Amino acid sequence: MIDQERLWQRIHQLAEIGKLESGGITRLSFSREERKAKDLVGSFMQEVGLHVYEDAVGNLIGRKQGKIPDAPVLLIGSHIDSVYNGGNFDGPLGVLGGIEVLQTMRDREIVTDHPIEVIAFTDEEGARFSFGMIGSRGLAGTLRQEHLQAQDKQGATIAEAMRENGFDPGAIGQAARSKDSVKAYVELHIEQGKILENTGLSVGVVSGIAGPLWLKFKLAGEAGHAGTTPMNLRRDALAAAAQLFQAIETEAGRTGSTVGTVGQLQLFPGGINIIPGEVEFTLDLRDVNESVRNQVEQAIREQAEAICNERGIGLQIAELQRVPPVHCSDMVQSAIRDACATLGLATTTLSSGAGHDGMQLKDLCPVGMIFARSKDGISHNPAEWTSKEDCAAGVDVLYHTVLHLAKYDG
Amino acid sequence: MIDQERLWQRIHQLAEIGKLESGGITRLSFSREERKAKDLVGSFMQEVGLHVYEDAVGNLIGRKQGKIPDAPVLLIGSHIDSVYNGGNFDGPLGVLGGIEVLQTMRDREIVTDHPIEVIAFTDEEGARFSFGMIGSRGLAGTLRQEHLQAQDKQGATIAEAMRENGFDPGAIGQAARSKDSVKAYVELHIEQGKILENTGLSVGVVSGIAGPLWLKFKLAGEAGHAGTTPMNLRRDALAAAAQLFQAIETEAGRTGSTVGTVGQLQLFPGGINIIPGEVEFTLDLRDVNESVRNQVEQAIREQAEAICNERGIGLQIAELQRVPPVHCSDMVQSAIRDACATLGLATTTLSSGAGHDGMQLKDLCPVGMIFARSKDGISHNPAEWTSKEDCAAGVDVLYHTVLHLAKYDG
Repeated sequence: MIDQERLWQRIHQLAEIGKLESGGITRLSFSREERKAKDLVGSFMQEVGLHVYEDAVGNLIGRKQGKIPDAPVLLIGSHIDSVYNGGNFDGPLGVLGGIEVLQTMRDREIVTDHPIEVIAFTDEEGARFSFGMIGSRGLAGTLRQEHLQAQDKQGATIAEAMRENGFDPGAIGQAARSKDSVKAYVELHIEQGKILENTGLSVGVVSGIAGPLWLKFKLAGEAGHAGTTPMNLRRDALAAAAQLFQAIETEAGRTGSTVGTVGQLQLFPGGINIIPGEVEFTLDLRDVNESVRNQVEQAIREQAEAICNERGIGLQIAELQRVPPVHCSDMVQSAIRDACATLGLATTTLSSGAGHDGMQLKDLCPVGMIFARSKDGISHNPAEWTSKEDCAAGVDVLYHTVLHLAKYDG
Repeated sequence: MIDQERLWQRIHQLAEIGKLESGGITRLSFSREERKAKDLVGSFMQEVGLHVYEDAVGNLIGRKQGKIPDAPVLLIGSHIDSVYNGGNFDGPLGVLGGIEVLQTMRDREIVTDHPIEVIAFTDEEGARFSFGMIGSRGLAGTLRQEHLQAQDKQGATIAEAMRENGFDPGAIGQAARSKDSVKAYVELHIEQGKILENTGLSVGVVSGIAGPLWLKFKLAGEAGHAGTTPMNLRRDALAAAAQLFQAIETEAGRTGSTVGTVGQLQLFPGGINIIPGEVEFTLDLRDVNESVRNQVEQAIREQAEAICNERGIGLQIAELQRVPPVHCSDMVQSAIRDACATLGLATTTLSSGAGHDGMQLKDLCPVGMIFARSKDGISHNPAEWTSKEDCAAGVDVLYHTVLHLAKYDG
């Protein structure tokens, strides 16, 4: 169907940018690596004869015109930024797969009624600024000036990083699309879980996306000399945090569906012989069921209060983002199932534990996702892997889904 | 007795160097701040007419000649480096107090039989390289080339930092003193505990110094996506570390005398939405009783093994330093007690929970310490405080101790 060699070769070409000794990659938003990645992917889009541009928030877009002038556009795509030491498929498969779909259409001289745009969204992961899905928020018109004040580890804000890359933070509104201008959004992505592998299927239809809640905890005790403060007189912020980490593990684990992760942590002042006076850490909490997530959040907040009270530790909890779970459009789900049927490909329906750009577009247009099988469920890790055949199967399904949604009657 | 205004003013003058908004200071070894501090303290030494120089490991030394040519030297002093966000008395009191002693002797035209040197030792705290007492090791002749490979957070080694400051790492042996050239070492230091405060005394005689054991733990689990890895399939290195932190707190707390502190911690890869695949942290473990410390260490190692085994986490424990507790010289202790008696000052005998440069000199010469009262026992913290009167009382005691040990018959 699609050209799986061309796709595979491009995935590996892109994987060279930001490559680490571990075999993984780090491509943060508005970095030199991201710039190089955009230039490479833009050159692929040029090869397909698309109209290539970057919008006001840095989304890289390749547009193919449709037969009907001014018809709403079908959006396809994903992202090309990564987490620290991430893998080579999370994001790139959807962007390069989208380009492959349009290239296949071009090779076959197919033009649909609706225009189609393939997008590489700016900063889906949120790895640099602890605030993600910047590009899709921009496109949805929900990115606000205050969001641009989020800082990276060096203290640079998103606004500063944008300016450094030639974008005007004051102009982000220009990236927003109107509801009537977008027909739907479809994203092909790796599963990042083990369901497809366990059921022996190459692709799956996504029913919904779990919403991430990101909290930042700040525990304030008292710093002091490690040698001269007896254990019973300490107000050690890390000791309190350790107790809380175990509560998080227990509370999330108890539901069977919620996942809770402390991924960033900093101690202050950070001397080997100083009792930690302050600890800051993040919590990423997710569930496809919002009320279950809320219950776990409440239990964690109560235990944090109790632990800190007992130890004389100050507690602050800031909300970095609270994304509700999103249901995928029935119309798009059914188009994906039809595409699988056309291809004679068995499939299943599953939910996504990971967040995706489509969540941000839920009020803009119908949203749907295709999952391709992950090896061992591993992602955000250099060992992330989806086979050449599974990548191609995902793109084949995307191809037929696009023909259906953008209307092509053959 | 001594000039307490001059002393107090110099303590505050030195406190301006490396000053932070918190009111505390950060003066790491071989930093620009340490250079400025040495220049200032060197100028005080010049004012006293001492022969001022820096030895091969950067110890700043001011020498006053004695009446007897080639008599063994009496060493006094402390350090002027600090921990991150430390206080203004830990170290400076002993160095500036030593200078004040020699200035008072000069004002009174007193010359002792033995020469006297006041020393500001290089890097007592170990804050920069997680390896401390560099200067006193150098003077004792126990500093080795391999020690100079310890790295700071930016990856710079001690050897590199020395070179950058004009010192030749290959020449550290030149700083070593011979046994017959040193009569004794006496250090005035703040207590950093609450014993003197609780007993209402300005000064105390130190009987011994608890030995710090510094271990570095490395826990290796598996990184993964925070949204797609169920809690029961995780190998989260931080979750294992959290369990171990509680074990450390329990095991150290159980003895009543041991203290255990996790002061530095780093997560990898450190993304908000990535399960920590690796955690590195330090443990500072101390007791005046070495066998108790060994028992606690053993219990912690066993629990670390058990926790990591159960969770499928790899465990490495490296020893950064293992310092045995040190007994203070009876001769020096008795000279300090005599000095207190001469001054009509009540005193007590206590041990030090904190490590000090004197520990490194134990095989070189008799070692002793005078403690001055700390407010609330706080140190390694901007709130560290010793009153003007208590600082002066400590220097008065040091003055008479020095006259006794360096021999002056009035």
